[in-house]
Amino acid sequence: MSSPNAHIVEVGPRDGLQNESVLIGTDAKVAYIEALAAAGLTRIEAVSFVHPRLVPQMADAEQVMARVPRRDGLSYIGLIVNARGLDRALHAGVDEVNVTVVATETFSLRNQGMTIAEALDSFGAVAGRARAAGLRVTATVGASFGCPFEGEVPPGHVAEMVRRCADSGADEIALADTIGAGVPADVRRLTGAVREVTGLPLRFHFHNTRNTGYANALAAVETGATALDASGGGIGGCPFAPAATGNIATEDLCYALRRSGVDTGVDLDLLMSAAAYIGERLGAPLPALLGRAGDFPPATTTARTAPGRPPG
Amino acid sequence: MSSPNAHIVEVGPRDGLQNESVLIGTDAKVAYIEALAAAGLTRIEAVSFVHPRLVPQMADAEQVMARVPRRDGLSYIGLIVNARGLDRALHAGVDEVNVTVVATETFSLRNQGMTIAEALDSFGAVAGRARAAGLRVTATVGASFGCPFEGEVPPGHVAEMVRRCADSGADEIALADTIGAGVPADVRRLTGAVREVTGLPLRFHFHNTRNTGYANALAAVETGATALDASGGGIGGCPFAPAATGNIATEDLCYALRRSGVDTGVDLDLLMSAAAYIGERLGAPLPALLGRAGDFPPATTTARTAPGRPPG
Repeated sequence: MSSPNAHIVEVGPRDGLQNESVLIGTDAKVAYIEALAAAGLTRIEAVSFVHPRLVPQMADAEQVMARVPRRDGLSYIGLIVNARGLDRALHAGVDEVNVTVVATETFSLRNQGMTIAEALDSFGAVAGRARAAGLRVTATVGASFGCPFEGEVPPGHVAEMVRRCADSGADEIALADTIGAGVPADVRRLTGAVREVTGLPLRFHFHNTRNTGYANALAAVETGATALDASGGGIGGCPFAPAATGNIATEDLCYALRRSGVDTGVDLDLLMSAAAYIGERLGAPLPALLGRAGDFPPATTTARTAPGRPPG
Repeated sequence: MSSPNAHIVEVGPRDGLQNESVLIGTDAKVAYIEALAAAGLTRIEAVSFVHPRLVPQMADAEQVMARVPRRDGLSYIGLIVNARGLDRALHAGVDEVNVTVVATETFSLRNQGMTIAEALDSFGAVAGRARAAGLRVTATVGASFGCPFEGEVPPGHVAEMVRRCADSGADEIALADTIGAGVPADVRRLTGAVREVTGLPLRFHFHNTRNTGYANALAAVETGATALDASGGGIGGCPFAPAATGNIATEDLCYALRRSGVDTGVDLDLLMSAAAYIGERLGAPLPALLGRAGDFPPATTTARTAPGRPPG
C-alpha cells in the first residue's frame, strides 16, 4: 500500500437511522451525533431532506440540524434528491450536500420518480445552486456495483454518469454499493473506469450485506479513495433484504484502517460508546463486531483460558 | 489478481461445532457433513481427537467418522494436538491430520500444556508417524496474527516455527488468525516471511471476530494461498470473546471468491441449505450473511420497491 490516506464520513445518523424501523427522537439523534463528533469524526451525514411520508425517521431533520454542536473542522452533510431538498438543506444550514442519482433506469424511476437523464439534469441544477450558496457538493451514484432490479451494472455506464456529474460541478464523487454486491475486484475495475473521466476526490459507500464491505473499503483506500462512508455501530439495514446487514460499521472500519497504517483520527473507545448509545435506543444487537470482541492488542491481558480446546 | 486459485477446507463440523455451546448429536453431525459434501466441498475437517472432557462436542468423533459418506476426491481431516490424538485418528480412518502448534509460549502452555519447543518436537514425531501411515499432514500455527495473552506476534517468529514444521515433514502449512486480529497488510507481511522459509502449499484460517476475515481471505488468495478454511453458516464462536463471531462463513467466502474470478466448485444454494440445517439445530441466527441477503445477481427479480428512500 503506497502512502494510503483516507477519512471517514459518518453516515449513521442518516443512512443508519433511515433504515431502522425504530423511530428515534430528536434528543437521542442529537446525543448520538454529539458522541460521534466527540470521538473525532469530522464529516457527519446528519440528516436527509426527503419527504417525511417516505422516510419518517428524517422528519425532524431541521430540528436536528438546529441543535447539533458546531465548531471549526466539523462539517455536516445533508442528503438530498431534488431541488425541494436543497431548499430545506440551505435553510437548515448544512455545510455540504450529498445529492444522489441512481445507476439504473428501473431503480431511478422507482426510487426517485425520475429517469437517469432527468436525475442528471436535476443534479446539474441543484449542484449549481448549492455551490452558489457556498456548499460543497457530492454526487453519489447509487447502485454502482449492482442493482436489485436490473442486476449487473457496467462500470462504463457508471463512469459516464460520473462524467456528467463532474461536468455539472460536483466537488466529490461517491460510488455506492447500495445492495452490498461488490468485491475488491469490482472496486478496482470501477475505480479504473471512473479515473478515466475525472480526477475528483473519490468517496465510497459500502454495505456489508454479503460480508464483502470491509474488504471493499480497504481495497478502495488502496486504489486511492479519499473518503469512506460508515455508520457508528453498523446500524442501518438494507431496504431490499429486510434481514440483511447495511452499512459497514465505523469502529470496525477504523480498526482495520489503523492496523493497515491509515490514521483516521478517531478514538475507538469513544466511538464504541457512541455506538452503544444508539444501539440501546434501537433495542437490537449492533452489527459492529469490535464492541463484542474488544480492541487488539488489548489494553490489558484479560483473555480467558480455554485449556485443551484446539486453537485455530 | 494473477490467475488466482484456491479451494475451501470446510471446518464447520470441527471448529464450528467445537465452539458452539449447544451439543449436536451424531446423526445431525453426519447429516451436516453429508450436506456439505453434496454442496461440492471436497476437504472437510470433520472432527478433532482431543480429550472429551475438554471438548465435549467432539466426544463422538469415532462414531461420526464411521458414518460419513466416502468417495474418491472427498478427503476427511481430523484435528489433533498430540500422539494420543494421532492414534485415534489412525483408528478412525481419516485421510489427513491437521496438527496444531501455537505461536506464543503462554497460549501454548495454557492450551496444550507444552512449551513451543515441546510442541514442535511433538509435531515432528506425530508427523513422521502420520506420513508413514499414508496420511497427509498439515501444520497449523495458531495465533499467527496475534495472541490473546501476549498481544502482537512477530512474523519472523511464526516463520521460524513454520520452518521447523516443514523440516519435520509437513505437507501443508496453515496460518491461523485464531482471535481475528489481522488485516490484509498482516496477511501479506506474514506470507512474505513464511515464503522465505518454505515453498509448501499455504492454507489460511481466518476468524471474522473484528470483521476483517473476508478481506484477509481475499488477500491471502491474491498472495498465492491455495486453501482457505471456512465454516458452513459461519458457525462457531471465539473462546476468548464469548459474544464474538468465529470462522468466516463458507457461503459468503464462496460468493466473494466467485465474484473475484475464483471458482471453488461449490453450489451456493446447496451450501446455504446445509448451513440452514445446522443453524436450526443450534437454534441461533447464523453469522453468514448470504442466506439473509440472497445471491447476486438474483435468479429472479424479486426486489421490493422502496419508493423515495434515498439509496446509498
